[in-house]
Amino acid sequence: MNKLKPRTLSGTMELLPNDQIVFNEMKEKIRKVYESFGFLPLDTPIIELSEILLAKAGGETEKQIYRFNKGDNDLSLRFDLTVPLAKYVSLHQNELVFPFRRYQIGKVYRGERPQKFRYREFYQCDVDIISDKLDIFNDAEMVNVIYSAFKSLDLAKFTICINNRKILNGLFDALEISDKKVDVLRIIDKIDKIGENVMRDELVNLEIDNKMIDKICEFIAISGSNDEKIEKLKKLNIKTEMFEEGLTELEKISNYIRQFGIPEENFKIDLKIARGLDYYTGTVYETFFDEYRNLGSVCSGGRYDNLTEYYTERKFQGVGVSIGLTRLYDQLKELGLIKESKNYVAKVLVVPMDENVAEFALKTAKILRDNDVSTEVYSNFSKDMKSKLKYADRLNIPYVCIIGEDEIKENCVMLKNMNEKTQEKLKINEAINLING
Amino acid sequence: MNKLKPRTLSGTMELLPNDQIVFNEMKEKIRKVYESFGFLPLDTPIIELSEILLAKAGGETEKQIYRFNKGDNDLSLRFDLTVPLAKYVSLHQNELVFPFRRYQIGKVYRGERPQKFRYREFYQCDVDIISDKLDIFNDAEMVNVIYSAFKSLDLAKFTICINNRKILNGLFDALEISDKKVDVLRIIDKIDKIGENVMRDELVNLEIDNKMIDKICEFIAISGSNDEKIEKLKKLNIKTEMFEEGLTELEKISNYIRQFGIPEENFKIDLKIARGLDYYTGTVYETFFDEYRNLGSVCSGGRYDNLTEYYTERKFQGVGVSIGLTRLYDQLKELGLIKESKNYVAKVLVVPMDENVAEFALKTAKILRDNDVSTEVYSNFSKDMKSKLKYADRLNIPYVCIIGEDEIKENCVMLKNMNEKTQEKLKINEAINLING
Repeated sequence: MNKLKPRTLSGTMELLPNDQIVFNEMKEKIRKVYESFGFLPLDTPIIELSEILLAKAGGETEKQIYRFNKGDNDLSLRFDLTVPLAKYVSLHQNELVFPFRRYQIGKVYRGERPQKFRYREFYQCDVDIISDKLDIFNDAEMVNVIYSAFKSLDLAKFTICINNRKILNGLFDALEISDKKVDVLRIIDKIDKIGENVMRDELVNLEIDNKMIDKICEFIAISGSNDEKIEKLKKLNIKTEMFEEGLTELEKISNYIRQFGIPEENFKIDLKIARGLDYYTGTVYETFFDEYRNLGSVCSGGRYDNLTEYYTERKFQGVGVSIGLTRLYDQLKELGLIKESKNYVAKVLVVPMDENVAEFALKTAKILRDNDVSTEVYSNFSKDMKSKLKYADRLNIPYVCIIGEDEIKENCVMLKNMNEKTQEKLKINEAINLING
Repeated sequence: MNKLKPRTLSGTMELLPNDQIVFNEMKEKIRKVYESFGFLPLDTPIIELSEILLAKAGGETEKQIYRFNKGDNDLSLRFDLTVPLAKYVSLHQNELVFPFRRYQIGKVYRGERPQKFRYREFYQCDVDIISDKLDIFNDAEMVNVIYSAFKSLDLAKFTICINNRKILNGLFDALEISDKKVDVLRIIDKIDKIGENVMRDELVNLEIDNKMIDKICEFIAISGSNDEKIEKLKKLNIKTEMFEEGLTELEKISNYIRQFGIPEENFKIDLKIARGLDYYTGTVYETFFDEYRNLGSVCSGGRYDNLTEYYTERKFQGVGVSIGLTRLYDQLKELGLIKESKNYVAKVLVVPMDENVAEFALKTAKILRDNDVSTEVYSNFSKDMKSKLKYADRLNIPYVCIIGEDEIKENCVMLKNMNEKTQEKLKINEAINLING
């Protein structure tokens, strides 16, 4: 028979077991932090009706979506977890308790031309809080969630940067350039890439007055501690309602963050952050590794005012953030920041010397499992001991529990510590205590 | 703006949070059992190249698959976890350690016409052991894994039924009807549905001699305890190599199962089980709830001889089973066998009386979380106490921790037990001990 060359679609992630263990640990840490804040789990389908998923989309999203017909249905794979959330909240609004705090960790799909760190299938880890009206405390809580998640992941020093779109919009109102704000935001958003001079040139191209450009530059150059930035913003003396609202929100969040006990070094007001063009309406978040800023933001999000506008008349506010786990894992792996896992799946390999001692070996395995020791039994009883030990070694199983006629007579086990290359005869309870250490 | 009616594609499962918690608990119990046996985690992509996924397929599979073009790629959604495993083992054969024991819990896709308990998107929870040559012990281990999984799920009394295809094939050899065995197997496989008389008629239609039909009926009517069945099979005195091999395997498995300590009531040799036509080559498994046999098998699988035949010359044997979790959950839910979860996501709701006590409340929340108590802070500080308590009640949060000026003065919290409708003033450490029980 002709063989097909086995291969995996580029732009999808498929790991070897040891790497998968580490990836799953990261995913589990994030999940635990989300649950520690009381977020409820959600698991919406990956396939949805195209009409529903694309209610809002257009442009890039629509081009990138995996869309197909099956029977009478026009279907698509979800490209994020936010649109499914909007649908879910609209559909179940009478059954849910608000504020509805949910997390969802799942795969999303984009028809990208695959290249390094661009994926067709990747994990997003989202948390959102949805309600008819959301207090600004929720915006602060998001910073606490991000902080706790990255503390728990323990990967590198990080800074959570926030801004408020109302401040930017209020400024543009005051400068009377609101009609050009979409373009101005787009230009400001990339200042880190293009630098101040190019930014000025681009603003000039928009026919913005040089005095206004000076103001914009003055504004986004505001520096100092978080408190100093807030003071300087106040001193700009901009009196539009929008600006004042945004500034009040920023100050409140800043106070809550102090109250959470988040260190100053992990939180920064960054007035340059705009995050895209039309979605967010208040607080926006980006998170950077201090020493690897070139990775871009590893956790982003923001406040939005009308989550469900395409599906229901009822208005829901929301605030949320998302970690793109697949990309994060791959980037960190390349940087050598991913450590090998110390959590083995099997903690002990039970090795019967031969078929005659199988019964005692299997009883031993059961006792180990009943005591929360994950236990594999080496399945080919007739292989030589060297092969059996080599197997444990290659799989990084830390203990081998050898059973022979002597062990049965003495009702004990020979426990081999694979790392320290030592072994001792132990009662089963002693072995359990040692392994569970 | 016109609103789109929000809806979820039929044949997919989307749960409300309380149900999702229960579903996730089931999934987690299965995962823990799989890991307790040392199975390694795997997470292959949901989208694969159609050429790879459909290497073997044909007929029903090909009709049911979600297939689409994107760019230059002809892609499909996986319809099971076995084909991706075959690809994975072929692709990574030089990097994996054999026997390769993996579990995968993930969604698979079938373009079914949706009806009750038929899904387009559903979870499969698979375990398999793969190696060049697999000792029969591995077949027995699968029974141990299924037993442990359903013990852990604690849903209803269950029986794991096994048979061996070699016994059936050996019998057909002996009866010299091997050329018709595919049809005969298909007919035997449905005896529970059609009964003995219809089965006889169908066998007559195949032009099988009446004496042979008697033998077949005698064979599949073999009854008694597992040991008695094995003895009766021996007494049939069928001397084909195939039959004897199957019988030896069945007897060995039966012995191991006794050694595992699996009760007789949970394990049964059932000579009628054939499981499909062309895939399995030895042991086959089905699992039934004793009182709900009409649900069909809730965990099935078997031994196969050449997992990777479409992708590589190297031959791999395998044995594995799969739990269809989505269907299982839905069926049990309808039967009222799913209990509400006692594991709340948030164990305590921290409620500051007003904004002035926020700082103390947030510090309290942090201490609770640092001590492994998942903690939600009620985010609208200015709401009245009644609303705050009602929120906790509706979300089934078992404790509310009220913070006011008095609590700050006395450096304590007022802890309300929502189920028992009691409350007491406690030091934070006392509160933690009480909540953690």
